[in-house]
Amino acid sequence: MTIKVKHQVHFYDTDTMGVAHHANYIRWFEIGRVEYLRSIGINLNEMMADDILFPITKVEAQFHSPAHFDEIIEIETTATALTKAKMEFEYRILRDDTVLVTGFTQNVFTNKTTGKITRLPEKYYTLLE
Amino acid sequence: MTIKVKHQVHFYDTDTMGVAHHANYIRWFEIGRVEYLRSIGINLNEMMADDILFPITKVEAQFHSPAHFDEIIEIETTATALTKAKMEFEYRILRDDTVLVTGFTQNVFTNKTTGKITRLPEKYYTLLE
Amino acid sequence: MTIKVKHQVHFYDTDTMGVAHHANYIRWFEIGRVEYLRSIGINLNEMMADDILFPITKVEAQFHSPAHFDEIIEIETTATALTKAKMEFEYRILRDDTVLVTGFTQNVFTNKTTGKITRLPEKYYTLLE
Amino acid sequence: MTIKVKHQVHFYDTDTMGVAHHANYIRWFEIGRVEYLRSIGINLNEMMADDILFPITKVEAQFHSPAHFDEIIEIETTATALTKAKMEFEYRILRDDTVLVTGFTQNVFTNKTTGKITRLPEKYYTLLE
Repeated sequence: MTIKVKHQVHFYDTDTMGVAHHANYIRWFEIGRVEYLRSIGINLNEMMADDILFPITKVEAQFHSPAHFDEIIEIETTATALTKAKMEFEYRILRDDTVLVTGFTQNVFTNKTTGKITRLPEKYYTLLE
Repeated sequence: MTIKVKHQVHFYDTDTMGVAHHANYIRWFEIGRVEYLRSIGINLNEMMADDILFPITKVEAQFHSPAHFDEIIEIETTATALTKAKMEFEYRILRDDTVLVTGFTQNVFTNKTTGKITRLPEKYYTLLE
Repeated sequence: MTIKVKHQVHFYDTDTMGVAHHANYIRWFEIGRVEYLRSIGINLNEMMADDILFPITKVEAQFHSPAHFDEIIEIETTATALTKAKMEFEYRILRDDTVLVTGFTQNVFTNKTTGKITRLPEKYYTLLE
Repeated sequence: MTIKVKHQVHFYDTDTMGVAHHANYIRWFEIGRVEYLRSIGINLNEMMADDILFPITKVEAQFHSPAHFDEIIEIETTATALTKAKMEFEYRILRDDTVLVTGFTQNVFTNKTTGKITRLPEKYYTLLE
């Protein structure tokens, strides 16, 4: 399953080179991830209320072509691993048919109080499956 | 008393017009405010641990001249009101002798649990005085 | 005329107090301003191609109530002055019927090459009228 | 050669999980990269004035431990490849002796006017060597 979200490049996203600053795509991966999780019934506010955090452990991005102010881009998110212990996603960010950026992220789950890595409770894990 | 902090304009702070994006100065006011409070013995992490938050209620900024990538700017922060109920600061951001931005902020204190406006405990208030 | 744009608060917009960081609203005013200008036929990329920049000269914001991760907010933008020399806008940011933030901005027009304040060419000014 | 830069985590860098948002480290890699280049005599403003841009093509980051508001971190930057065609750097971000984040970036050089990949003029290349 691939979840698609449209996003507009705002003026404040650009830099002196006249393109969207590269660190923004890492933020935009997060938008895709949140929408993917929402689509399978997982709400991150609920997870935080249950004392579970989801820190990111790895990010990779390849930048193929730049986005510019005012362009509408699409964030495509695909899960490649969703287990009790971690979530892995792949991303493609496109403008029309042009692939601008591809990427990968890994998150683990931790207990909000202890800060230690934890396994996801069944309530969430059944949704990930 | 005026507290001065130096700060460098990074590439990611700039926009397509080739200058530091204006919203960054609002962030930089925060750097000045934090250093001002530190200088009088107030640590915001300690305040949060004591269940006190300090949401901002007003911001004003006048932009006189732009800052650019790699420039060193100086944030000057002066308290204009520090009471049990609110903190008000004025700011000047300069590059050498050129005033780039002037501004003003107001913060109140709220209880982290209730979200309601609260009065600052004596422990902090004596420092503000 | 008031132009309304919906916007979602992303995780990366939040801070340790669990709310959208206040500097983001200044960025979101920009989203409203760009949409307002688009609605009257003004495209900022075209303006920059015509060697006209539009630096901000004043920002004011009053923060009434915080926005949180994942909430959908609405940015309402109203022009209060649109002349050859400057643009002034007022903003209301709402979540449903709750006014979260109100604000004001002023932009002037400058020549990209000289950096000096300039008057808007008729091509754009007739649109502003 | 490894170039070290100190940086403070600001309140606006944090998120609802109470830690520095992960996308900021990608920005902080840029701070390290700029300082590395400065240390060998390369000024990016001069490069842009010479019509050379330096878009990023790859980013990788591994997040080991989080940074929090007000902490002083250190960005360590090491060049692993500096050629006429690309720059590659490795990064370690530490708080005291704790490695928080490690990473890698690759930049290429492009001509500002054509947008095409270009080879660095000798003026800069001799500095990279």
